Amino acid sequence: MFKQYFPILSWGRSYSARQLTDDSIAALIVTVMLIPQSLAYALLAGLPAHIGLYASILPLVAYAIFGTSSALAVGPVAVVSLMTAAAINNLGIADPQQMVLAAAVLAGLSGLMLIAMGILRLGFLANFLSHPVVAGFITASGLVIALSQLKHILGVEASGHNIAELGLSLWQARDSINLPTVAVGLPALVFLFWVRSGLKPLLLGLGAGDRLAGLATKLGPVLIIILTISAVSFFGLDSKGVAIVGSIPGGLPDLALPVFNLELWQQLAGSAFLISIIGFVESVSVAQTLAAKRRQRIHPDQELIGLGASNIASSVSGGYPVTGGFARSVVNFDAGAATPAAGAFSAIGIALATLYLTPFLFFLPKAALSATIIVAVLSLVDFSVLKRSWIYSKADFIAVFLTLSGTLLMGVEIGVTLGVVASIFLYLLKTARPHIAVVGQVGDSEHFRNVLRHKVKTWKHILSIRVDQSLYFANARALEDFITAQTADQPSVKHVILQCSAINEIDASAIESLEAINDKLAAMNVTFHLSEVKGPVMDRLNRISFTSHISGEVFLSHIQAVTTLSTSRVKAKK
Amino acid sequence: MFKQYFPILSWGRSYSARQLTDDSIAALIVTVMLIPQSLAYALLAGLPAHIGLYASILPLVAYAIFGTSSALAVGPVAVVSLMTAAAINNLGIADPQQMVLAAAVLAGLSGLMLIAMGILRLGFLANFLSHPVVAGFITASGLVIALSQLKHILGVEASGHNIAELGLSLWQARDSINLPTVAVGLPALVFLFWVRSGLKPLLLGLGAGDRLAGLATKLGPVLIIILTISAVSFFGLDSKGVAIVGSIPGGLPDLALPVFNLELWQQLAGSAFLISIIGFVESVSVAQTLAAKRRQRIHPDQELIGLGASNIASSVSGGYPVTGGFARSVVNFDAGAATPAAGAFSAIGIALATLYLTPFLFFLPKAALSATIIVAVLSLVDFSVLKRSWIYSKADFIAVFLTLSGTLLMGVEIGVTLGVVASIFLYLLKTARPHIAVVGQVGDSEHFRNVLRHKVKTWKHILSIRVDQSLYFANARALEDFITAQTADQPSVKHVILQCSAINEIDASAIESLEAINDKLAAMNVTFHLSEVKGPVMDRLNRISFTSHISGEVFLSHIQAVTTLSTSRVKAKK
Repeated sequence: MFKQYFPILSWGRSYSARQLTDDSIAALIVTVMLIPQSLAYALLAGLPAHIGLYASILPLVAYAIFGTSSALAVGPVAVVSLMTAAAINNLGIADPQQMVLAAAVLAGLSGLMLIAMGILRLGFLANFLSHPVVAGFITASGLVIALSQLKHILGVEASGHNIAELGLSLWQARDSINLPTVAVGLPALVFLFWVRSGLKPLLLGLGAGDRLAGLATKLGPVLIIILTISAVSFFGLDSKGVAIVGSIPGGLPDLALPVFNLELWQQLAGSAFLISIIGFVESVSVAQTLAAKRRQRIHPDQELIGLGASNIASSVSGGYPVTGGFARSVVNFDAGAATPAAGAFSAIGIALATLYLTPFLFFLPKAALSATIIVAVLSLVDFSVLKRSWIYSKADFIAVFLTLSGTLLMGVEIGVTLGVVASIFLYLLKTARPHIAVVGQVGDSEHFRNVLRHKVKTWKHILSIRVDQSLYFANARALEDFITAQTADQPSVKHVILQCSAINEIDASAIESLEAINDKLAAMNVTFHLSEVKGPVMDRLNRISFTSHISGEVFLSHIQAVTTLSTSRVKAKK
Repeated sequence: MFKQYFPILSWGRSYSARQLTDDSIAALIVTVMLIPQSLAYALLAGLPAHIGLYASILPLVAYAIFGTSSALAVGPVAVVSLMTAAAINNLGIADPQQMVLAAAVLAGLSGLMLIAMGILRLGFLANFLSHPVVAGFITASGLVIALSQLKHILGVEASGHNIAELGLSLWQARDSINLPTVAVGLPALVFLFWVRSGLKPLLLGLGAGDRLAGLATKLGPVLIIILTISAVSFFGLDSKGVAIVGSIPGGLPDLALPVFNLELWQQLAGSAFLISIIGFVESVSVAQTLAAKRRQRIHPDQELIGLGASNIASSVSGGYPVTGGFARSVVNFDAGAATPAAGAFSAIGIALATLYLTPFLFFLPKAALSATIIVAVLSLVDFSVLKRSWIYSKADFIAVFLTLSGTLLMGVEIGVTLGVVASIFLYLLKTARPHIAVVGQVGDSEHFRNVLRHKVKTWKHILSIRVDQSLYFANARALEDFITAQTADQPSVKHVILQCSAINEIDASAIESLEAINDKLAAMNVTFHLSEVKGPVMDRLNRISFTSHISGEVFLSHIQAVTTLSTSRVKAKK
């Protein structure tokens, strides 16, 4: 029980020298990748760059203790950073110090929510974010993020949390573009795109191994940072209007509890919940995919606790909300990370960087960081989900479309909420109007099929009906309407048989509807029968002795029902 | 098409002298019953008594033109009157004239919503009010109404929209009880209870027919009104503190469009929607039950239009929201109403009463009207739904309990909203955690059953899994978790077969989950197969050529899958 909450006690006991080597190598590579990412994502979240470093130390240690995935690389990620920016923007505060404190509160709240969900085993709540909604959300977020970073490449002031606001803001600033900034940002952007698309084939052509070539392309951002720092300091570009990161407080973050201000906590609660769910969904799907490659498993409910602990660690060490990132986790996995300890070793790397490397980041141009963000997020943009969902199901398409356009035009929080509400509503709509068919016998077989689609045998005084859905409150009356209307229209009908083979469940409302159907049929002198009721459904019906309430019988199979009821007067028509 | 919206064009063409006689007799009885009810329910709604009469003239004519039920008696009803009181109370206005105008706006809005729902065929939205929620709501509303009327019986001032407020308010007024009022109200109450329970057996004992005895008991309220008017005017009780209806404006209501004030319309929109849904649900179930007794049918979507037209008629003639009442409709049916024309004839009766009877109502004590309300609504109170739902399903019990306690403690609007939200959430919760079983072969049969419940045959390298629910976004990941965990735990497994016999639908998220399952299994060197996929589901899978995406095959039956996959190396265990 206790051990279940501390996975480190399981894998830690058999930790080997071989695993230590593997984890160290992976940690080194992830650290090099994480330094520019953490700085860049903190800027995206509207926070000072070093907050990204703070969010990449203790949270990784916490995940190493509580997490169950050996490959997941926790830390700042793009989408959660964007959501953090939106949440802080909602507060309407402008003081940077206050924004940093609010970000820590957001991480703390999110951590508490994740842990609570983990203990209460509520991980399945994340399932209400359907795949298409997540896909639409990620694509739209990627576009919003890329557009929001354009200002750093152009060296202008612009703001906004959706593409309309951002686009308008950028357009209004078109006359104040800073050319030296563009001279740094644009080449960085082009180079990083080339690294993604052109470098790997080149290295492979030069005879490098596939894994090595893959890893080398991940180092592009580090190279860009070194090159642009050199360029800015050498040419004194900061005095020509190129925005730089500037002086970063030296030393490790101080530990402190997040400020407790009830009003602030209440204002951030909704955002913290959305961040928790989105972060968890992203993280758990990466972790599961990577675990399956080694035929390992992760424990989703414990993952909630792991991510929750990470966020609380981030909160007390001056960070902001974190989760498992897709790109870094894949690198971590490819580099051979064997246990969650790899994350803790990365934390040591980032701590050392925070202690000794920050003076070198003084001249780092924000344009270079924005270039790394833009290249990273544009790889997430994928509109094919629109086409795929259109082909497969219009309901899914509507949900994706609303999420995508909501996120683009109204911001991340409204977008994702719209998507969830729409997919739940459309699902209810679908189940509320079940497919109901009048069925007849196919030839001399025991099969019964829809009379509208197949040439089947029916009986004048028997109405056979099949409903292709479990019965619950939202669709029970539809069945009631269908059966009473059909029976009223066919005065020769003496028996109605409901074939229950597709009914997995019947709730209390549906029971009352069945009783109402029975009573209405009885008023018309028609007997009501059931056939092919599943075991668990029958158990439940027996609990309220339903069968004694209805006028007819319950038959094991539909053929048996029809045979029994038609023997006295077999009048087959057609 | 046109005719469909005017049912009167169908039944009106063959209207016979016999039907005229039947309808007239039923109308006379309903009119006599409706006069005291309409006055009483208007008071319950917090409106002057004569507004109830106004709401019982034109709405009945409108329903006769647009309605499809021959028995439904439209007009003021208890629950909708209580909801009207709550809606007007939310506005925080005290001027009686303003309240009357607001009530007309509420009726107009509700009418427009009902008609829109009828034209858009959205009647199924009402289904999201589950039976248990409706039962809990009616019971709680009955108690709130009865308690709210006690002040008129005691002759005190009291207010509130839930039992806590009402109880406290009555308790604080305990010293100002008006004894003459109690002297009128209490005997009236006792007499009406006796009429309900004791009069019918007495009449039957005296040799009266069952139908006659039943109708006679419905006349109790009229008798009470005549007796109490006489008593008040004879003893001059109004000067001793007995509240009376007083002077009622003579003549028929003026026709006028409801005031258009955007802010007011917005404030009332939510309440109007709840009133529309509740009114429709109540009305349609009564209408269906009575129609079935004559093997007739009603058209739910046209009923929306009929009730909508009634409410618009009520709105333009100074009334307030109306719907089909249970008690009056049953009386109308028993009295032999043959067509909706019976309602129009009742309207003539009420119009005559409004023109010539109102002077006689001057001395009518409010206590007598309250007594009729209390007796009527207490017959709706039925706590057995709590016990029944507890036995049948805990989820339904929770929904009932929340509706009941919410309505009692927080008022009608919060109560019913809570019930709907809870039942939707609990339904999603149930479907989000589907029953998933590992199955094995029963003896040598073709049946496969849960390995945990039955003694079955399994194969070391085959994992057979059955899920008892359609797959959609909320439960797709649960299946993913289950299958990947099971496979990771059993290294000997080479094939996973998903038995799809209980799957009625697979949405886009579930497809991606199935693809993810396939990929994860492939990473573990396990092949993924499906069996017993239903026709419509297969059609949809073929649309995206799903079968070419998965590593295994789709088998027609599970036995065929197992036979095929086990032939090479049949290693039956246990």
